[in-house]
Amino acid sequence: IKYLARHVVAADRLAMEVASLYRRVLPTPPAVEFASPEGRRLFAEALEGGTMEGFFSLVPHFQTQSEPAFCGLASIAVVLNALAIDPGRRWKGPWRWFDESMLDCCEPLHVVRSQGITFGKVVCLARCAGASVRCFRADHAAVHDLRAHLARCASSRDCHLIASYHRGHFKQTGGGHFSPIGGYHAGTDMALILDVARFKYPPHWVPLTLLWEAMNTTDKTTGFPRGYLS
Amino acid sequence: IKYLARHVVAADRLAMEVASLYRRVLPTPPAVEFASPEGRRLFAEALEGGTMEGFFSLVPHFQTQSEPAFCGLASIAVVLNALAIDPGRRWKGPWRWFDESMLDCCEPLHVVRSQGITFGKVVCLARCAGASVRCFRADHAAVHDLRAHLARCASSRDCHLIASYHRGHFKQTGGGHFSPIGGYHAGTDMALILDVARFKYPPHWVPLTLLWEAMNTTDKTTGFPRGYLS
Repeated sequence: IKYLARHVVAADRLAMEVASLYRRVLPTPPAVEFASPEGRRLFAEALEGGTMEGFFSLVPHFQTQSEPAFCGLASIAVVLNALAIDPGRRWKGPWRWFDESMLDCCEPLHVVRSQGITFGKVVCLARCAGASVRCFRADHAAVHDLRAHLARCASSRDCHLIASYHRGHFKQTGGGHFSPIGGYHAGTDMALILDVARFKYPPHWVPLTLLWEAMNTTDKTTGFPRGYLS
Repeated sequence: IKYLARHVVAADRLAMEVASLYRRVLPTPPAVEFASPEGRRLFAEALEGGTMEGFFSLVPHFQTQSEPAFCGLASIAVVLNALAIDPGRRWKGPWRWFDESMLDCCEPLHVVRSQGITFGKVVCLARCAGASVRCFRADHAAVHDLRAHLARCASSRDCHLIASYHRGHFKQTGGGHFSPIGGYHAGTDMALILDVARFKYPPHWVPLTLLWEAMNTTDKTTGFPRGYLS
């Protein structure tokens, strides 16, 4: 199956929808796109280095956030499914499975839909779902903690990191965002962000120090800095 | 974030839901789980061999079918998004993006929800969305065609295969199924199935000849054999 050039019929319809968007161009640098030649080289080297182990359990559950403000819920759902945590209740048909719509135990979904969710409530949600979570706010941790935690989780298959950060540090549009981290490249000290806003940006590698700076920003809703969950 | 053993509270709730299921055990052999040590070895070798190129554009869009009978719709959505085909209409917020709920141009969604979808209508849907599609029914192609097409698409980033097959050949529960193919391992002649029923089976490698046999089965709804789209 291939892209077909005659898809210009769609362009006519687009002319009537000036305010709608088809993805955003990923600012590179500072990011390196996952599927670019450089991204594939980083992937292959990190795989060789043993810091893509977590990727193999995480990427089978990588998903698109189902609402523009559901980045926190989608990040949690990816990790809960990757850890094979049984929700203990049905999703659809006979199947038990974590879907964003089932993550309503710390904040009503209609509130998340309109305002997003805070770092503290994402921690609450992960715990409510049965995960063991440690949270690191940027004012109580340092970049070397993030590096150590990421290197360890990326080298194993039983823990995963979720980053809470501000997109501005990567020259990306938008503000606060959540996404799981899918791997680590030790040689260049870069982290692979599996961005759950897949309709906007593809997965991408970013310098870990810049990711730390993006975490070390204040969430205006809470007055506290962002950080990461491990 | 880790699995927490105290998640036994859920087990109590489970006792009351005897007919519900948390995943199925993947029969191995014939399949090899993507995240198993052998699966990771196959992946690394195929990556080295240049037949995982398509994986890098496909896996960023890998998704879970949103309904038990939406395997065809989910497979198409994964491939359309991987090919960066603009749907020309909004999904949510300002974003244009392919979601299964937008794939209603060849069969009404309520029909697909209750009965699934046929090979022919999946081809129709991919074309309707603007993709260039060639379809190969098992009675008009041979296993070497499948191998040649897969080897070529797995080595590039601008085409992807969707398989229409019967799960029974892999000792899996269920009947006819659709899923995209995420890579090829030439040395062992195995294909990586990115199974969209992620609540049931994880991604897995299968022998290509067995996949061909699973395609070479009759869909009782149409009376025609299954096959693949390229």
